[in-house]
Amino acid sequence: MAFNLWLQYPELAKDIEKVKHNLQDKISVDYPDLQTALSKMASNGGKFLRPAFFLLFTKLTADSQNRVDDKKLIDIATSLEVLHMSTLIHDDIIDDSPKRRGEVSVQSQFGKDIAVYAGDYLFTVFFDLITDNVLDTPFFKINSRTMKKILLGELNQMKHRYNTQQTFLNYLRNVNGKTAYLFRLASAEGAYFGGASSQTVSLATRIGQNIGISFQILDDILDYSDASRLNKPTLEDLATGVYSLPLLLVLNEDSDELHTLLAKKQDLTLPEIQRIQALVVELGGVEKAKDLAAKFTNKALIDIDKLPDSTAKKKLAKLTKVLLKRTN
Amino acid sequence: MAFNLWLQYPELAKDIEKVKHNLQDKISVDYPDLQTALSKMASNGGKFLRPAFFLLFTKLTADSQNRVDDKKLIDIATSLEVLHMSTLIHDDIIDDSPKRRGEVSVQSQFGKDIAVYAGDYLFTVFFDLITDNVLDTPFFKINSRTMKKILLGELNQMKHRYNTQQTFLNYLRNVNGKTAYLFRLASAEGAYFGGASSQTVSLATRIGQNIGISFQILDDILDYSDASRLNKPTLEDLATGVYSLPLLLVLNEDSDELHTLLAKKQDLTLPEIQRIQALVVELGGVEKAKDLAAKFTNKALIDIDKLPDSTAKKKLAKLTKVLLKRTN
Repeated sequence: MAFNLWLQYPELAKDIEKVKHNLQDKISVDYPDLQTALSKMASNGGKFLRPAFFLLFTKLTADSQNRVDDKKLIDIATSLEVLHMSTLIHDDIIDDSPKRRGEVSVQSQFGKDIAVYAGDYLFTVFFDLITDNVLDTPFFKINSRTMKKILLGELNQMKHRYNTQQTFLNYLRNVNGKTAYLFRLASAEGAYFGGASSQTVSLATRIGQNIGISFQILDDILDYSDASRLNKPTLEDLATGVYSLPLLLVLNEDSDELHTLLAKKQDLTLPEIQRIQALVVELGGVEKAKDLAAKFTNKALIDIDKLPDSTAKKKLAKLTKVLLKRTN
Repeated sequence: MAFNLWLQYPELAKDIEKVKHNLQDKISVDYPDLQTALSKMASNGGKFLRPAFFLLFTKLTADSQNRVDDKKLIDIATSLEVLHMSTLIHDDIIDDSPKRRGEVSVQSQFGKDIAVYAGDYLFTVFFDLITDNVLDTPFFKINSRTMKKILLGELNQMKHRYNTQQTFLNYLRNVNGKTAYLFRLASAEGAYFGGASSQTVSLATRIGQNIGISFQILDDILDYSDASRLNKPTLEDLATGVYSLPLLLVLNEDSDELHTLLAKKQDLTLPEIQRIQALVVELGGVEKAKDLAAKFTNKALIDIDKLPDSTAKKKLAKLTKVLLKRTN
């Protein structure tokens, strides 16, 4: 999907190319190895979903006089990808992930030393971009707050490792931090800088939030439905006590086998993890998670329908359906 | 020195207490273990030098009408310590430091996971503080740039690990990143928000920079003069190829023994490191470093003398002499 997603959106694809070039320019750093690592990460496999949603939302109001100039829009779109990349790099340190976007991750290539500073460096690039482009708007504080919320989401996820009592509400807090806040920011910021009304900006905020949640739930489901995903990260998520949604939704089921296995915590073997995955499917966790994803997708689609009519609105609805695997 | 430094400055000591309270308030986070770690780190042993220099510089212009209100000054002073703490936490990950300010470091207490996020979290606290307090002044960009320069200094230090050809100019780049930029920011920002003239702000910038360089050189010298400092961090600096100034100043000396030892890089044993330290002293590295520190201290003192006359100016001269171990 990653490489074909934008084929049907040639105008958007062109703008995403601009974001990619701008990104390469902004992340340049006088440290050859790090430069190589960041450039590779920026050019390999990333779907640029956050910039894409941002760009689509800027086009909601056709020929708006309030739209800021294109260079600014490309810079803001870039800032979203930079923030995303910086959190990915730091997440990889924590997960000890060997791979990122199909390539060797920054931390496994250069060690955690460089990875810590690489993520920090991207935070400063992010702040430069928002300082230069959104400083005199309400979105400066919203950006800064988003970064904080992403971190609090990560910390909350850590706090609830191995917690077999955690609730869906708590999961939502984590998902907000991991994914939804950034989709929400991208959408709201797109509407705002595209010159949309404050009512449309509010709608965009909610749309981005719900798309983000559904997107993360579907990502969680992949761990249980695609054998090729049964790889180190999945294994590590379970072994490090990060429970994804399908598992979380069957924690209350009366299965001694499941709870005995989970009690092993970090000592789970690969066959045991595979058994947990089979149990989660058997107990209906995947189906329940799919239902929840559909609920959030529907919420987003209902709100998209309320947007002012435009080509961008139709593209947005279509992209949301494709991305969130709606068949109708 | 840490605990007695402010005894002779009762007014300053009172303001530093305010900064400490404010710091505890700002770093509060809904994650009990992390909260404990950050609180401990904020209350233990830190000299609060950067806030102290900032506060002294705010008082240069007695009863200036341009001085911003006290709450803002305490917030800005706090932001300097928060930025300092965040870089310390990430540095400890890279150095695998077991101790920080005499206490167990965040990373060795909670693992690198929490330490990565703890540092990131403090970055967001820093940005909140500068957003709330200096957004509409030139110091917003200067703060943001300082954070970037600190990181580039760290990256430059890594780039030159085990580099026996590195120059004093390169060392200065590292020192700027490690220490001097933040002292410079503290001093310049203090003068500016204290309502001083732009000429005085320029002087303050230079004073802070030179104090920072001298301070770091003296810290480097301590590794060679105080047996109690011959501990894990010193050992690690050498073993990880980070050459402090006294060593760097004798790299050109004609000593086969020194170069044979250095060629062992990360395989140096403790006795070998002790031998390197003895050689550095023998070859005059410590003396040369002391001369350089004195040069930068003198530059700072000459500039302090040019400041408008005030009680704060006298205190500043005295503190600089005490801190930088000037005997006259």
